[in-house]
Amino acid sequence: MGNKNIGLNLDGLDFSRECLEIYTQELQRGQQRLESGQEEFTGWYRLPFDYDRTELQRILEAAEEIRKKCTVFVVIGIGGSYLGTRAAVEWLEPAAKAGFPKICFAGQNISSRYHRSLLKELRDKDICLCVISKSGTTAEPSIAFGILKEFLIEKYGREEAGNRIYVITDREKGVLREETNREGYKSFVVPDDIGGRYSVLSAVGLLPIAAAGIDVKRMLEGAAAEAGRVSSGENGSELPKDPGMCYAAARNELYKRGKIIEVFEAYEPSLASFIEWLKQLFGESEGKCGKGIFPAGLQFSTDLHSMGQFLQEGNPVVFETILNVEDPGEDLIIPEGAGAALAGKGMSEVNRAALQGVTAAHRKAGISVIRIDLPKADPFVFGSAVWFFERACALSAYLLGVTPFDQPGVEQYKAEMRSVLEKE
Amino acid sequence: MGNKNIGLNLDGLDFSRECLEIYTQELQRGQQRLESGQEEFTGWYRLPFDYDRTELQRILEAAEEIRKKCTVFVVIGIGGSYLGTRAAVEWLEPAAKAGFPKICFAGQNISSRYHRSLLKELRDKDICLCVISKSGTTAEPSIAFGILKEFLIEKYGREEAGNRIYVITDREKGVLREETNREGYKSFVVPDDIGGRYSVLSAVGLLPIAAAGIDVKRMLEGAAAEAGRVSSGENGSELPKDPGMCYAAARNELYKRGKIIEVFEAYEPSLASFIEWLKQLFGESEGKCGKGIFPAGLQFSTDLHSMGQFLQEGNPVVFETILNVEDPGEDLIIPEGAGAALAGKGMSEVNRAALQGVTAAHRKAGISVIRIDLPKADPFVFGSAVWFFERACALSAYLLGVTPFDQPGVEQYKAEMRSVLEKE
Repeated sequence: MGNKNIGLNLDGLDFSRECLEIYTQELQRGQQRLESGQEEFTGWYRLPFDYDRTELQRILEAAEEIRKKCTVFVVIGIGGSYLGTRAAVEWLEPAAKAGFPKICFAGQNISSRYHRSLLKELRDKDICLCVISKSGTTAEPSIAFGILKEFLIEKYGREEAGNRIYVITDREKGVLREETNREGYKSFVVPDDIGGRYSVLSAVGLLPIAAAGIDVKRMLEGAAAEAGRVSSGENGSELPKDPGMCYAAARNELYKRGKIIEVFEAYEPSLASFIEWLKQLFGESEGKCGKGIFPAGLQFSTDLHSMGQFLQEGNPVVFETILNVEDPGEDLIIPEGAGAALAGKGMSEVNRAALQGVTAAHRKAGISVIRIDLPKADPFVFGSAVWFFERACALSAYLLGVTPFDQPGVEQYKAEMRSVLEKE
Repeated sequence: MGNKNIGLNLDGLDFSRECLEIYTQELQRGQQRLESGQEEFTGWYRLPFDYDRTELQRILEAAEEIRKKCTVFVVIGIGGSYLGTRAAVEWLEPAAKAGFPKICFAGQNISSRYHRSLLKELRDKDICLCVISKSGTTAEPSIAFGILKEFLIEKYGREEAGNRIYVITDREKGVLREETNREGYKSFVVPDDIGGRYSVLSAVGLLPIAAAGIDVKRMLEGAAAEAGRVSSGENGSELPKDPGMCYAAARNELYKRGKIIEVFEAYEPSLASFIEWLKQLFGESEGKCGKGIFPAGLQFSTDLHSMGQFLQEGNPVVFETILNVEDPGEDLIIPEGAGAALAGKGMSEVNRAALQGVTAAHRKAGISVIRIDLPKADPFVFGSAVWFFERACALSAYLLGVTPFDQPGVEQYKAEMRSVLEKE
């Protein structure tokens, strides 16, 4: 199991372990706050152990039912009801079983062009819908659900349409819960004690990810293994042994030194959406009270040919966090035609050399580079990584002196938007 | 023609026109440097007027030939040989003609998973290749070309494979030019006086974009119209009348005030790759000598549910540049089922209200918001926008006191990477 753990590499950082240890007390206090379970919205912390087994069984059964009923499963949601599922589906595509429906997304924007194109694609497909919204009032998913429900009714008639709608919403209240009860849609629960950006290991992510043919039990096992490393004291729950704490301390130390942008970098394009998930996790948790590390994402080696110059020689306000997938899967051998220097090598070997070369070049230029090792693209590692980052993010936010689990700033634009719409 | 121009909106910025006018002299000097044509790598500036008509005719003929020969056109390139084409194809999809090949990309990364999946997709398709590399030695496209050439030869035999390869490279030198001459591939020229990130309106972009069924003549006309506004003195080539100069001055002024991140935002997902193109343009042009505004991209309203909190209340180091597509095309009417507040409205109307609401909320919070108006998704506007941003970026870099057209920092990692590969 050793090689299945998430690893942290801080080589070359020009601060000593001692320098990080000044964070120990605050980190331990944060850890206690998470463990106590008394803080609001910390349900995700014990979720790998405490999840509702009956709900999970219902999710697996629903996923099987969805597989039989459709070739495209349209997932309607935004923010935390979108990014985690998308991250899992794209990263874990090779781990998905054959014969499961394709996952499409809707209601993650208000673009008519996007949704017209989606409707066109769905015209001759067998589809089911999954609508995910705690309140049922968020504009984007409400609009998309309205449009797709109408489409479904036209296609299948009202009764069969109802059989093809799966809802994940509040247990008791809200307009979506009311409609669900009235229409008899099959439904699952967005837990009260888990916020959107922390919800991918709840029904919010589990149903659509299971529907894609990904082993969600293994995902939960991965999260439980990572949580177990912390709770068992395997890491000593202290610096410098605990990778999550070290990562939280390192990024706070870098922030204090003026590194206010964290660039998440992956050498596999399949991690692009996982990085989007990280951006919400960190950006929404830390970006408040005039503070916060700005999270950005880059795909390498692609973006070395666009942002590489800036990283190497530009404004030195950036630190880098590499997401390193250690085993990228089956390789492709480079043929003769590609030139003598590369012929006969594996593409993944060259990709790894790029990672090592960039790391060396950036460290030589004085850029702080953190590397997080993710063993491979499988559900277990995904679950571990999710829980690792959720905890590290919460601990980071505590160090920064902000509440990790609220997002008071997202209401202002909605109010302004309503007022624009009412004026019209 | 009036409504076809790129517009700039600086409402709510808390600096006066006078404050921008201190940049006038330096901007005019920059403008003269661009106009003089004596500076290295400024060929893009006069390209909308000076492009090689014979080459364009050959490009259009090749595009027609490609259309007849294949259903998938694989474009191999990275950086400036990738981003501009991708930006055009995704943004202008509705303007493309039916019956043209699908564009796929290769060699923009070194992921074996990505390329294995691409090969699988290509197995039962009729394909042609386009390989774009000035030197022919860049690792990513060399590797992908090696692999895809082998694939092509297996599929069609050596001779027919050669007929399906289109090369865009140096006029005279380099390994790719040598191979092209030896094998008799059809080829086009990467101009000597235009750098990668400024090359989309040369053969580098024109061939693959034309192959996708997009009217590249209209693109060049759009660029020429924008360039004409400047050269005719229609804008007076001075602040505050000249939108490109105003934009350059505004972003430099914001940078001086500590706004070191420029977030490019679009409310249409189809602009995601155009934003990636902007990131290379600005990041690689300005990120040097320890300076530069860090360019980041967000998709709205999607990312309001991830980064909206940070923008509204987080670290106030950000300014925003909205890419506002004024006419998003055919609308979708929101049905009853979406709730009374939205039913009957158009989706685009709500999207516009989001843009207005966010702008108001952010301006109230003291965030500087620049809005660039792009009339619609058509080749003319694309060409105008490309040239507008190219010039504005060059002028910005001059104001910042850096050379806009070099990228000395991208060699370090390549050297380190080679040394890793040689050690193995």
